[in-house]
Amino acid sequence: MPQVSDRGKAMPDSPIRKLAPLADKARERGVKVYHLNIGQPDLPTPPAALAAIKNIDRAILEYTPSEGIRSFREKLAKYYHKFKIDVDVEDIIITAGGSEAVTFAFMSCLDPGDEIIVPEPAYANYEAFAIVAGAQIKSIAASIEDGFALPPVEEFEKLITSKTKGIMICNPNNPTGYLYTQEEMNKIRDLVKKYDLYLFSDEVYREFCYTGSPYISSFHLEGIEQNVVLVDSVSKRYSECGLRIGALITKNEEVKRNVLKFCQARLSPPLIGQIAAEASLDADPEYMLSNYNEYVNRRKFLIDGLNRIEGVYSPIPMGAFYTVARLPVDNAEKFCAWLLADFEYQNETIYLAPGSGFYTASDKGVDEVRIAYVLNRQDLAKSLKILEEALKVYPGSRVKKTEVVKNEMNS
Amino acid sequence: MPQVSDRGKAMPDSPIRKLAPLADKARERGVKVYHLNIGQPDLPTPPAALAAIKNIDRAILEYTPSEGIRSFREKLAKYYHKFKIDVDVEDIIITAGGSEAVTFAFMSCLDPGDEIIVPEPAYANYEAFAIVAGAQIKSIAASIEDGFALPPVEEFEKLITSKTKGIMICNPNNPTGYLYTQEEMNKIRDLVKKYDLYLFSDEVYREFCYTGSPYISSFHLEGIEQNVVLVDSVSKRYSECGLRIGALITKNEEVKRNVLKFCQARLSPPLIGQIAAEASLDADPEYMLSNYNEYVNRRKFLIDGLNRIEGVYSPIPMGAFYTVARLPVDNAEKFCAWLLADFEYQNETIYLAPGSGFYTASDKGVDEVRIAYVLNRQDLAKSLKILEEALKVYPGSRVKKTEVVKNEMNS
Repeated sequence: MPQVSDRGKAMPDSPIRKLAPLADKARERGVKVYHLNIGQPDLPTPPAALAAIKNIDRAILEYTPSEGIRSFREKLAKYYHKFKIDVDVEDIIITAGGSEAVTFAFMSCLDPGDEIIVPEPAYANYEAFAIVAGAQIKSIAASIEDGFALPPVEEFEKLITSKTKGIMICNPNNPTGYLYTQEEMNKIRDLVKKYDLYLFSDEVYREFCYTGSPYISSFHLEGIEQNVVLVDSVSKRYSECGLRIGALITKNEEVKRNVLKFCQARLSPPLIGQIAAEASLDADPEYMLSNYNEYVNRRKFLIDGLNRIEGVYSPIPMGAFYTVARLPVDNAEKFCAWLLADFEYQNETIYLAPGSGFYTASDKGVDEVRIAYVLNRQDLAKSLKILEEALKVYPGSRVKKTEVVKNEMNS
Repeated sequence: MPQVSDRGKAMPDSPIRKLAPLADKARERGVKVYHLNIGQPDLPTPPAALAAIKNIDRAILEYTPSEGIRSFREKLAKYYHKFKIDVDVEDIIITAGGSEAVTFAFMSCLDPGDEIIVPEPAYANYEAFAIVAGAQIKSIAASIEDGFALPPVEEFEKLITSKTKGIMICNPNNPTGYLYTQEEMNKIRDLVKKYDLYLFSDEVYREFCYTGSPYISSFHLEGIEQNVVLVDSVSKRYSECGLRIGALITKNEEVKRNVLKFCQARLSPPLIGQIAAEASLDADPEYMLSNYNEYVNRRKFLIDGLNRIEGVYSPIPMGAFYTVARLPVDNAEKFCAWLLADFEYQNETIYLAPGSGFYTASDKGVDEVRIAYVLNRQDLAKSLKILEEALKVYPGSRVKKTEVVKNEMNS
């Protein structure tokens, strides 16, 4: 039997999905599982998108241009202009989700052995896409004590070598919900300029900023227009994860030329998804506002609830719909598995994403979890109660009765 | 400005799409262009698929499982059983088109520097996907004189080194329309077994075999069940290129495990596409037969027509909906560009795919073109007439008046 690739073996299991078999088994036992692990919004897709799908008037479902349907790209350009992102239709290339946009960005800009710097915790699949491109992620840990603010510039500079080709950020951030300030973005800009790096900027959560602080796009930063490769997606914005429609936006002609070759090789992004996504750009402002307000409320409810549980701490996320919380447990991955395999409260349990999967260093995030607030308030309330009860009885908990802890320490 | 990747620079331009700007310009001049360059069928998508899309009854367009929707995979397993391909639902992983299936197969099985052997002419994007994986294609040219039959086994063995990890075939073949015989498939099987290679087998055209000869799947070959990675797609079978739905099928658990990690990283194949593709598996047999008969008729009409033109030769393709023809020209790529940029006949012209793009060696296919018979008979008739007239006046034609040729040779 021939050997599989080392690259495939090196690919990480998704921290968001790796415990899915345990969740399946819990369900088989009749236990209800609340999914806080995955960024799958429960809010409705815009009616305009669903109508566009139902009204498809085509006899043949043909390839679209490799770079995407022109009318969709034109509308997207106008959408970005509303955020003062000054891009032209030619700068926008449609991809199969933000995932393909990151992949093509790395493939087009990075060669095997090249390095990129990523503040962590970070979206877990960046590491997977770096492996696909043969590139190395050099990480700088942001700290929960600082609310996951940008680590000091000196930390970045320590990592910069001749192999460093770029910095990757996600703003507003998945998994922390952090929103970079103008000052932080200026520091990133200066680094990018000083070392002539790419700035890969994942901005799929731009519509979800909750604190009144401005959303600063990497395209707002002056003097690095040729360095920015922006990643976007309609998945989260419009609850359209299943469409697989994203975009890669760059003003760098050479990058565009490379990206287009990868696009041509896979022929076309999904046709129906593009039609639905284009219609979504006309979504009723009421729809957007209603979803926004729902996340605002959930955020307050969840974070307040988390911080009321003994030993639990969550900074206040400023955007997206996640938070990274610290739990009073020996090992959050064990705890997450235990929640699914060995625990239930009133016949229900919760599925959290272990924090360690959002760091490349194995000693980071050991007592952290990512929680997505993609459930309604009632389910969030139940989830918080389940977490509280679980922490009382989990064998590796640090908030149990003192004797039990002592026994464990002696064993 | 940071440097783009060497890998991106090494990516080939698609031979099928690279002349598209010239075609656009021809249209701008008011010239009608017949597209024989691309495998975009003009036949209708099954009504059952269109109905499934129009009847979507969902409020949220969610991610599907990374490996695809289970009911779709179950139906696909039954579909393969009809072709005596004995696979289980767990062996089937849904991908974003056959393109992603090839990419994930290469990524999962091959490491940078590994080699695969591909008989050529071959689907041009295999080379692109090999570059994505950092692998090398070692090619063996099949010859138009032999009707593009499998080259001798000795030719394969000459290329096998310690780096050789697999053989890639496409059967029925794109671009040649060749259908491998049982004897040829047995030779491939013996090679795969002897050297313990992967057999990557693209069989997306299985429904289009026209000569009564049997379609032999790589999964029909005994003793190499663990070596086969089959690539499939609904694009051509059901005129659903825009859905972006394919599949990777393997019984090799280690390969599956690797492939699933790449699938998880990109989260989900397209939801709507899967729903439509699942419905397509119930397509009316009359629909399939009607499309089949249409291709049978076009094939005869096109090949007869080509071989009647002075200096043109096309072997008879046995499957798929392409042929590779030899033209009496100095350089087919120049000729194809000239057809779009400098020629018209009654205000119309044709877009052919230059044959050289289907070979990795630069000296092969120089006077060949791929022609897709994805137009109706009337348009094929006009296209043949345009080709005939073009060859009479093309400056690099070998069938022009003798004096002109002499002049050129002296210049």
